[in-house]
Parts: sequence; structure tokens; C-alpha cells
Amino acid sequence: MSLIGKTSYDGNMKEDNTGHNEALKKKMGGKTFEKKPIIGTKYTLAISSAKGGVGKSTFASNIALALKKIGCRVGLLDADIYGPSLPKLFSIDEKPKSDGKTLTPITKYEIQCMSIGFLTEEQTPMIWRGPMVTSAIKTFTQKVAWDNLDFIIVDMPPGTGDTQLTFSQDIKMDGVIIISTPQELALQDVKRGIKMFDKLGVKIIGLIDNMSHFVGDDKKKYPIFGNGGVERTAKEFGKNFLGEIPINPEIGKQGDLGIPIVEHNPDHEISKIYLSLAEKIKSNFI
Amino acid sequence: MSLIGKTSYDGNMKEDNTGHNEALKKKMGGKTFEKKPIIGTKYTLAISSAKGGVGKSTFASNIALALKKIGCRVGLLDADIYGPSLPKLFSIDEKPKSDGKTLTPITKYEIQCMSIGFLTEEQTPMIWRGPMVTSAIKTFTQKVAWDNLDFIIVDMPPGTGDTQLTFSQDIKMDGVIIISTPQELALQDVKRGIKMFDKLGVKIIGLIDNMSHFVGDDKKKYPIFGNGGVERTAKEFGKNFLGEIPINPEIGKQGDLGIPIVEHNPDHEISKIYLSLAEKIKSNFI
Repeated sequence: MSLIGKTSYDGNMKEDNTGHNEALKKKMGGKTFEKKPIIGTKYTLAISSAKGGVGKSTFASNIALALKKIGCRVGLLDADIYGPSLPKLFSIDEKPKSDGKTLTPITKYEIQCMSIGFLTEEQTPMIWRGPMVTSAIKTFTQKVAWDNLDFIIVDMPPGTGDTQLTFSQDIKMDGVIIISTPQELALQDVKRGIKMFDKLGVKIIGLIDNMSHFVGDDKKKYPIFGNGGVERTAKEFGKNFLGEIPINPEIGKQGDLGIPIVEHNPDHEISKIYLSLAEKIKSNFI
Repeated sequence: MSLIGKTSYDGNMKEDNTGHNEALKKKMGGKTFEKKPIIGTKYTLAISSAKGGVGKSTFASNIALALKKIGCRVGLLDADIYGPSLPKLFSIDEKPKSDGKTLTPITKYEIQCMSIGFLTEEQTPMIWRGPMVTSAIKTFTQKVAWDNLDFIIVDMPPGTGDTQLTFSQDIKMDGVIIISTPQELALQDVKRGIKMFDKLGVKIIGLIDNMSHFVGDDKKKYPIFGNGGVERTAKEFGKNFLGEIPINPEIGKQGDLGIPIVEHNPDHEISKIYLSLAEKIKSNFI
């Protein structure tokens, strides 16, 4: 309940660049949570935004593949219980094996994968209230046999609710990358997301401007969703701006086909953006 | 808990076009919920999709304004607790009055409005678990002094969780309009949303293809997010297809400025689409 009280004030918590979460925890009323790493993994990186439909899952799958291509061992955890997208994005249509105690992730494109979508029929809605979501997330973080990973990439759902709270309180999170499209309406949610992670003491690695613009056959750059808003937001909150990824129908097409663009065509200009981002991320940790 | 069990089976519930929800309720294990209308309103219409970022809020605000322009008394309830957008879309920066028992909606552009965003600072994240969300939704549906409305338009959050369940179980819902962009990844979530509303016995008025295509200065039609997927999905599920709304940077720009396009320029081609949809919707009810 103490967190709820805290939603009514803010602005007094400076970003903690040192990674010393203890100070933040004290400011949050002395409440401490036991944070466990996800067993079998070195670093947990979340892909988040608070806003839906900005390309989080597409980003998560392509950055996972890019990290693999530069030599890392990578897992991909689809934490969106209401809208799992990993089965489609990686074209996975099998159920994970279980020994009764742990679930074995499904390995595709050399990435270890887990999603609620592997456990249900494709079109079955998970009509669940919050506590069931929390329970599913705990299963995915505590009872999946991840095997010797450098990075686990967590694809977060929209919002600032049960899933975000469960991860931030229970799991040793090593960083979050925030994705947004550049229109003001999306950035509003993103700003709330930034404040949430700051309050919960999760380090924000940086912001990505996704669907920054569209290039027509006439070679014109169309800033369909506005211009420069994500970089301005990064500056406003003193966060790193990691770069922009233009709209390219090829990205969505490859996602729909189940072979993300970085896997399908590593030489594509979009793939090169992901590979360069992966190098940046890797150098932060390894 | 009975609903959770039901997530594991589906396909046997045919759409109930007669509006007789009793049959559906019996199929759901005999569990009945007392459904109250929202006091002060005749018809409750939800704008939903299960998927985030497809333009639900932009659609909800413009359809509310279009219904007003054709002579209806309209309210707009922003039910997205984690990502309220009504304060920005309608440029509302005041707190609602309260007599200690009820909240008075804020009237702007002759629409009665309510949003969690009116009660908090713009950038404050609502770091809430599910039961708090349910409690906020109950306040908005039971303790707001809506005044003699023909329609209340409810802008739903993404997902198939606490908010959707609370509305479907507690409130007499007269219909839901489902919005989607045409890419397969979005449609997956939309299909889950359709199944949820069918299971919960809420009538689906029809589907809208939002951001169907972009027209460049070269007059070319670019199907950025794919082609025809929403209409195919409507057919697949035996639902009405209500039409498409192209991507137009003007729509987002006007939203960011706080005067939605239907209010700012009722003669714009996009506004005409909304006005024609409003006529269709009105004729379904009045």
C-alpha cells in the first residue's frame, strides 16, 4: 500500500546514476524487497514504454537477435500476459516441456524463449484479474530452466501495474530500455513510465525513437507521428537517447512472417541499426 | 475464479445477436452479475481493442464529438487508469468539483468528461495493482454525476483484465466498437478481445480499420501496416465491418493540440468519416 500513497507526490527523487538502489528504497519508506536474479541468467534487461503499440515486442525480438549475432547467449521472456506476441514473431507453435517442477524454454533462432502464448491456444483471451497475472510472472521468472544466458530480454506489457511492480520488486533488474513513438500523446505515457522506473529504482539505459519517420517512394521523409519528441523527452529527464528507428513496412512484414528482420536480412539498414544498438548495450555490461 | 477456468476452452459460444445475454450467462456456469446502468446515461458504448497504440483514444474522442454534432448528449469516460489521454486530447487542466459524494464531470466542447488524469498531476504514474484499478473504475461508473446523457463513450485500456472484467460484470454495456490497425500482430490481440466480449456477453457493434494506409504527397497509397486485415477479421468472426480511417498526420497533430479534428475542422475528410460513423451508431440505438 505504501507505493500507492507515493503516486500522489513526485519530483523529489533524483535519478540515481550510481546504481545504488538502497538510497531509493530508503526514500520509499524503508520498505525493502528481496530481489532475486532470474536463475540461469547474468543480466536482466526490460524493454518497456508504459504505452502500447509503439513497437516494444518488435524491438525486443530484434535486439535479442542482434545481441545473439554479436556473440551473446540470449533469452527472450514475453511478459505480456494479455497480448503475447512472441509465438507470432518467432513463429513458434509448440508447447514447452516440463518435468513437473520447471518449464524448459523453447529455443528458436538460438534464442531461449518463453511466453504465456506457448501455453494457450493462439486466440484464447486471458481474462484474468491482476493477482493471476502476478502469479504467471512469478512462474516465468522462478520456474523456467533458462540455461547459462548472458542477457534475458523481458518484453514488458503496457501500463504501470502488476507486471511492472512484480518485476521491480522481486527481480534484480539490470536496466530498462524505453521505446516510444514521437507523438505527444505517446510521450505522456512514456514520461509516466520513466517516473515509475526511477521511483522503483530500476536503471534506465536509454530511450529509443521508434517509427520516427516514413520514407516514401518519392524519397521524402514523412514525420507521420511528429518530430524529435523522444529525444526532447530524454533530455528533459536527463536520460540517454539511444537513437531512432524509422517506419519500414519490411519490419512489420517480417514480424508477421515469424522471422524478424535482423534474422531474415542482417544486412538491411534496419538490421544495422539494431546491431549497432546491441554493441552499445553489450559494452554497458560485458 | 470460474472465468479463469473458461480461458482454456472456447469456440462453442456463438454470437448472440438477439441481445439475450441470459443464455450466455448460463453457459458460463450459471454465475450472474447484477448489471447496473451508469446513472444519468441511456446507452453505454465501449471503444476497445485489447491491443494498445491503435488509436482507441483518438477514435473515442472524435466519435464523441461527432455524436454531439448530430444532436446527441454525450459523455466521455477515459477508463485507462495507467495511460489516461483525455486531459491532453481535450486540453483539460482543471480538477472536477466534488460535493463529497459525487464527482462532477468537466464539460468541454459540450461533452461531459471524466478521467483519472483530472485527479492527478500529468506526469504522475499510477503504480497500482489490479484491485486499485477496479476501485477507481467503480468510482467512475457509480459516483460521477453524469447529466442526462444519450451516450457515454468509454475509452477502454489495452488488455483483457481488471477494467474489462469490471465493466462487463457490473455495468449494463450496450455495445462495443473494436478498433485495430491492419497488421497481423495487432489483429491477434483484437481476436482475443472479440472472444472476450463474446464470452462476457457484450454485443460487438463492429470493427474499425484505423491507420489503414498513408497517402504521400505523391498521391500514392502506402499500406504501411498491411492491407485488409481488419475486414478479414470481421468476416472471420461474423461481425460488422464499420469502415477504415487512413493515417493522417493532421489527426495526431490536432489531438496533441487539444482540439480533436472533428471539433477543429468538421469539413475535413477525416471528420466526414467520423460523422458518417456517428449516424450509423445513432441509428442503431435512437
